Amino acid sequence: MFQRQIRTIGNKLNNGIRTFSSKPNAKVTYPRRIFSGIQPTGQIHLGNYLGAIAQWVKMQDNNEDMLISIVDLHSMTLPHDPKQLEKNILEMTATLLGCGIDPEKVTLFQQSTVHQHTELCWNLACVATMARLAHLPCYKEKSASLRDIPLGLFIYPVLQAADILLYKSTQVPVGEDQIQHIELCQELSRMFNNKFGQTFPHPHALITGAEYARLRSLRDPSKKMSKSDPDPKSRICLLDKPDNILNNIKKAVTDFKSEVTYDPAERLGVSNLISIHSFVTNKSVEDIVLEANNLNTGQYKLMVADAVISHFKPIQDKIAHLVEDPQYLLDVLKQGTEKASVIAEKTTEEVRNKLGINPSINNIGKIKINA
Amino acid sequence: MFQRQIRTIGNKLNNGIRTFSSKPNAKVTYPRRIFSGIQPTGQIHLGNYLGAIAQWVKMQDNNEDMLISIVDLHSMTLPHDPKQLEKNILEMTATLLGCGIDPEKVTLFQQSTVHQHTELCWNLACVATMARLAHLPCYKEKSASLRDIPLGLFIYPVLQAADILLYKSTQVPVGEDQIQHIELCQELSRMFNNKFGQTFPHPHALITGAEYARLRSLRDPSKKMSKSDPDPKSRICLLDKPDNILNNIKKAVTDFKSEVTYDPAERLGVSNLISIHSFVTNKSVEDIVLEANNLNTGQYKLMVADAVISHFKPIQDKIAHLVEDPQYLLDVLKQGTEKASVIAEKTTEEVRNKLGINPSINNIGKIKINA
Repeated sequence: MFQRQIRTIGNKLNNGIRTFSSKPNAKVTYPRRIFSGIQPTGQIHLGNYLGAIAQWVKMQDNNEDMLISIVDLHSMTLPHDPKQLEKNILEMTATLLGCGIDPEKVTLFQQSTVHQHTELCWNLACVATMARLAHLPCYKEKSASLRDIPLGLFIYPVLQAADILLYKSTQVPVGEDQIQHIELCQELSRMFNNKFGQTFPHPHALITGAEYARLRSLRDPSKKMSKSDPDPKSRICLLDKPDNILNNIKKAVTDFKSEVTYDPAERLGVSNLISIHSFVTNKSVEDIVLEANNLNTGQYKLMVADAVISHFKPIQDKIAHLVEDPQYLLDVLKQGTEKASVIAEKTTEEVRNKLGINPSINNIGKIKINA
Repeated sequence: MFQRQIRTIGNKLNNGIRTFSSKPNAKVTYPRRIFSGIQPTGQIHLGNYLGAIAQWVKMQDNNEDMLISIVDLHSMTLPHDPKQLEKNILEMTATLLGCGIDPEKVTLFQQSTVHQHTELCWNLACVATMARLAHLPCYKEKSASLRDIPLGLFIYPVLQAADILLYKSTQVPVGEDQIQHIELCQELSRMFNNKFGQTFPHPHALITGAEYARLRSLRDPSKKMSKSDPDPKSRICLLDKPDNILNNIKKAVTDFKSEVTYDPAERLGVSNLISIHSFVTNKSVEDIVLEANNLNTGQYKLMVADAVISHFKPIQDKIAHLVEDPQYLLDVLKQGTEKASVIAEKTTEEVRNKLGINPSINNIGKIKINA
């Protein structure tokens, strides 16, 4: 997957300067550790929930060493509403807990409260090159429509790399569209290691829930379900009221045939509903089609809505209960900050030593001045 | 000086999003505070010494509220030698103290030990625009010769703005080549204030020691004395041995006339020596020319060398003494970190509140989820 030629700026710029790096040690192994980040945006749709959060809960229950970060610093790379962001941070905390994330089992924290993220971002920015970042397809895409491009939008993949490497994470669950950023992170890890000595692991993308990423818009099944679609009726969100879920599914665009058959090539709309139904019930597509044998698509939609609402009900109840107690949510985040900071500070101390910005009586030899 | 039209990305990108800013309050005044940064590079030449450090000592002795930061994070924007950087940080500390900086009177600290610098850098990066940075002449100049441009070289003016604004500094002593960066800092301050409410002052460039910036190369008086000149004989450095100073001045390029006259238009070489002589002795050019009346330029060079060596002697002795005690230098820096951190944390807390990344039980209203 990652066959690209690494360009080490060190070799090109460092002419005549002795390098302080040991060769990257292929034998160094790092304990498996998973890092996930999620932006504190209000709308978690079904695809996000199934493809990300529900997967994290599974990993947690498999006793993985895992950090989950509410990446608020990434939410500022495009204009944001501070009051809303503040609420979203706590709402996202409640949402993750409501979905089953257990702060005793994983480290759940708010990114900006661990100051070492931006410090490592700066350090990696001194290793990254302009050209490499400018060619990231994600940047090209997001900046294309903007007249004034915020610098943050350009450099956030470096912060993302810092998020991952700060904890020496080895696995990063991502969607396919994020692989480019994991590749950048791999390169920055390798470049840093080459220049300053083995420090960081080579983190791997963990592609999870690809099937959920293919959920379609309810309004236009030719498009993916997306939180950026201006029409909220195009998606089902985790926090939607049951009435909204029912209405959105009732109005879901299907086709002129009334039978319920699974045929993603020809009948994308109804097949999408079957997929949703299957995901939230864990029933097979075959069983569902059999079950819906005597229903027309209008009747079947009620069955799908009912399944989604039932699946969401206990989660929504738990979230509603949690947001009543913001102090508890703040306490959970504080505990996460403390846990994350221990690892972050350890890595940062190592990085500072390697960069030569941590003078101490032990590592300074005699200083000879010219005079 | 700063008449450029401010482009607020907020207005352009924030379509339809309510803004949370109060208008910048022209009536807000900030107590005068001076911020100076100096890179921990080994070579301080006479121009740097006279134009920067000696000026800071004067400001300190005028009881200015002043911070002086050894900006090690800026030293990493081009390839660096970690072992050397580590020594340079302490050597620069000794140099500043040797020149008369008193850590009881000013806050002298190592930039990277105050983690809030990189955090504010990130926050300002979300306000800065790509176009604005790409057009900085300094970036164009420094990147022109590089095949792979480190990202750090592109974004360091934003870190520089963070250095200044973190302490709500109102005055920044700089050379004329740095005015472009102060202008950027002014813009970022204004843009942040416009978007998130009055937070930062409008810092002013304090052009000091412009006369010292015009010191000429000893090898080629048509060029400025510069630490980037590959020929060390072209300059006089603060830590040069007396023999070196003598030799470099003896070999200074003058012209074929043997009298000592001050004529910068026609006799740049000898006039440069007179300037140096005047700067280090505080004698007027007229008095010096009178004094050198009976000397030829060869004899006069010995007089200049003697004056420079005598001026540097007590400083060099003090620096040599200080570097013998690295623990003392570390203690001075630690004390500076503590003093700077108090201000830095206060500003950071305010910034985090304004950005909406500091949820607390007091500022979170009731969270209403959809369900």
